[in-house]
Amino acid sequence: MRRALALATTPGVPLGPNPRVGCVLLAPDGTTIAEGFHRGAGTPHAEAAALAEAGEAARGATAVVTLEPCNHTGRTGPCSEALIAAGVVRVVFAQPDANPVAVGGAGRLREAGIEVVGGEMIEEAQAVNRAWTFAIARRRPFVTWKFATTLDGRSAAADGTSRWVSSRAARLDTHRLRALCDTMLVGTSTVEVDDPELTVRDELDEPVAIQPLRAVMGLRDLPADRRIFNDRAETVRLRTRDPEQALADLFARDRQHVFLEGGPTLAAAFLAAGLVDEVVTYVAPMLLGAGRTAVGDLGIGTIADALHLHVSDVTVLQGHDGEDTNVRLTMRPHLRRN
Amino acid sequence: MRRALALATTPGVPLGPNPRVGCVLLAPDGTTIAEGFHRGAGTPHAEAAALAEAGEAARGATAVVTLEPCNHTGRTGPCSEALIAAGVVRVVFAQPDANPVAVGGAGRLREAGIEVVGGEMIEEAQAVNRAWTFAIARRRPFVTWKFATTLDGRSAAADGTSRWVSSRAARLDTHRLRALCDTMLVGTSTVEVDDPELTVRDELDEPVAIQPLRAVMGLRDLPADRRIFNDRAETVRLRTRDPEQALADLFARDRQHVFLEGGPTLAAAFLAAGLVDEVVTYVAPMLLGAGRTAVGDLGIGTIADALHLHVSDVTVLQGHDGEDTNVRLTMRPHLRRN
Repeated sequence: MRRALALATTPGVPLGPNPRVGCVLLAPDGTTIAEGFHRGAGTPHAEAAALAEAGEAARGATAVVTLEPCNHTGRTGPCSEALIAAGVVRVVFAQPDANPVAVGGAGRLREAGIEVVGGEMIEEAQAVNRAWTFAIARRRPFVTWKFATTLDGRSAAADGTSRWVSSRAARLDTHRLRALCDTMLVGTSTVEVDDPELTVRDELDEPVAIQPLRAVMGLRDLPADRRIFNDRAETVRLRTRDPEQALADLFARDRQHVFLEGGPTLAAAFLAAGLVDEVVTYVAPMLLGAGRTAVGDLGIGTIADALHLHVSDVTVLQGHDGEDTNVRLTMRPHLRRN
Repeated sequence: MRRALALATTPGVPLGPNPRVGCVLLAPDGTTIAEGFHRGAGTPHAEAAALAEAGEAARGATAVVTLEPCNHTGRTGPCSEALIAAGVVRVVFAQPDANPVAVGGAGRLREAGIEVVGGEMIEEAQAVNRAWTFAIARRRPFVTWKFATTLDGRSAAADGTSRWVSSRAARLDTHRLRALCDTMLVGTSTVEVDDPELTVRDELDEPVAIQPLRAVMGLRDLPADRRIFNDRAETVRLRTRDPEQALADLFARDRQHVFLEGGPTLAAAFLAAGLVDEVVTYVAPMLLGAGRTAVGDLGIGTIADALHLHVSDVTVLQGHDGEDTNVRLTMRPHLRRN
């Protein structure tokens, strides 16, 4: 299973609506017959790739796969049927497939007399497809809210200037995190005020080949010359102010992981609606004393009602050549009192 | 010298106006004859302690000492004369004594025909007495400004409640840092609003035996029943609003390390005057969205004028039993643009 998980996370597979899956076919003596992994939407599933490589050798084999084999015909046929047809006698999988259209693979395999074991290394497998697992279960995309702040909670100076609060290392890190999402979301006011291009750029500041979707939510009309509407990536308008509606729209577009980069008002709306699943904060060792706050009013009046976050990671982004050292905190909201 | 530095930092020596010093007496063959360290104001200097232990054996010895031997008679006699009288033939010291009343020991020793080498491991020695070294050189105490903040730069909620922004681990850590200073400074408004006791407490929340001085600056009269005026520690009123004047007053009282724990206005006054030498910030993974800001107006209007801090340490204070994990940043101000 460890090898199957490694196959699932083979670098270079483009992020798409499909989960990343790895599969290893083992002979009765435990030797590896064939391996396969899913290379993105429209290409063969991991099981199909491994079976194609194995050919007749798959007869009598055990298939070890990171996700329960699918049971439906999409752009490719059901993997359950392919495994049965190939003469596989045992299937070990990690994560059950909760996708309503694909579910039922384990049952179909058992009906055909195949021994099926599920749940092995399930947590590791779920982590490989964290956003997919979340989105399938919750019927909405996973939301990562990112913000940069000074030590004193400011995102811009009194005159509105904000280039740069975060260091170059933090900005590069942000591009890396953007690339792990399939959608970047801002509000109309951010487009009006900051006019971000909202693309993923590499270390040379060049846009990368595969860009996440750019989404702008809000009712206001925007000038067509804003950078977010350029042809570097696809952009959608979500004509709503309601975070829940915006996420439903994005889920309907097969979006599973939203990187929320809006201003304080948009962030506050998502927080207030309980629709932030992860918070990434870059703290810059800088004091402004005044200026735009990083987070807008959350309707919290007293300390007992503070929104506490559980810290899962603290990373120091060392400054070079006189740049500030920034600190990145990765957190998830939870509801408890200090 | 490494051994002498270890002696200088022997645990349990009370912080006082005197530097911490260690001394090793070596025989011509390099073996140790005697060791000594300074145990606080009024007790023998490190050299005197080592010489007393050595007795006649000091004749012909080399004295290795972390600070240039003093040349004046205070509560104890000059160490230069004691070393000469004991028949020491060579003195190796780390840090020159910049204290104007004690200076001149090396010259006096050389006059007496003793070989003198200075500057060995000087940086390590200066670090042992960081605040003393700073205060002697700058004629004012070293100032550590400590503040706790939420992720969004708040020190209290909209209704003024602030117990607790920082975690228990962060509060314990604050008491540890307070104990390393000789003075804790707040403004009259903090005393009025928060009524802190401002003592150093141990892990059982009991006041420790040796307490730093408590200092309150500002012109306003205060009710005598405020906790800062209780008998747990000494308290002084500094009847000024001027940070420079307050530090001059404290320096005149032999104070070398001020732990600034005032509110945003007091902190802003010290920052604006360039009188903050170290900043310690506890970041709590908490959002309030509104409430008292951790730092007051600094007169900074645009991002290019932001006050940048150089990060010297980032420590994660892990939360236990459901407590928040806090992050402590230790920084020093510097003047540069990002």
